[in-house]
Amino acid sequence: MTDARDTGLTLNPKYDAHGLITAVVTDVASGDVLMVAHMNAQALALTVETGLAHFWSRSRQSLWKKGETSGHMLEVRDLRIDCDQDAVWVKAVPAGPTCHTGARSCFFRRVGADGLMAVDAAD
Amino acid sequence: MTDARDTGLTLNPKYDAHGLITAVVTDVASGDVLMVAHMNAQALALTVETGLAHFWSRSRQSLWKKGETSGHMLEVRDLRIDCDQDAVWVKAVPAGPTCHTGARSCFFRRVGADGLMAVDAAD
Repeated sequence: MTDARDTGLTLNPKYDAHGLITAVVTDVASGDVLMVAHMNAQALALTVETGLAHFWSRSRQSLWKKGETSGHMLEVRDLRIDCDQDAVWVKAVPAGPTCHTGARSCFFRRVGADGLMAVDAAD
Repeated sequence: MTDARDTGLTLNPKYDAHGLITAVVTDVASGDVLMVAHMNAQALALTVETGLAHFWSRSRQSLWKKGETSGHMLEVRDLRIDCDQDAVWVKAVPAGPTCHTGARSCFFRRVGADGLMAVDAAD
């Protein structure tokens, strides 16, 4: 089933009960997924306006300009929204490691039949 | 702050109140984000066991083997989990268009200051 939200050209994000959509960040150079977070309407608007990724921190319940503390900002090169407008894809140039653990990507572990294995995102 | 979930090698997904984690699928060849969906424990286990992406459909409230109806399955080449284990990254070979609209990727619209613009995911 498709509707205007699915195929139209009007921005009409489908926020969840907490007022959030999912945000996936990839490295524009490598295509690697760097992180997954959430945006509320304000974070989305600031991301569009400033060209720097902003999120809503669910743990801190506050607006979160990525890199404000660490300096590891995410410079947005492209911003996409998906068919049902409940997720955005941010293609970015990262100014440093994206993960709070210091890893380049938050996805530094592979899931296998025997558990997890540490890998570099580029592997 | 890091803990065992963040850096250890034990699979311990942080399911939300609905028993779900976020799943991001990228095309292993292009790096494009194809779709964002959700997995429950069963979908994650089936994805690992079968090598084909399984999700939990929130709209249908049922297990969803991607491509079961359309034939457009997602063959998993790599599966990663993020630091806080509430999101997985599925690198896949898509057997056809991933989006229900017929688009190759669900992210076929760019978000700009003036609204949305249709683009191909590869642009």
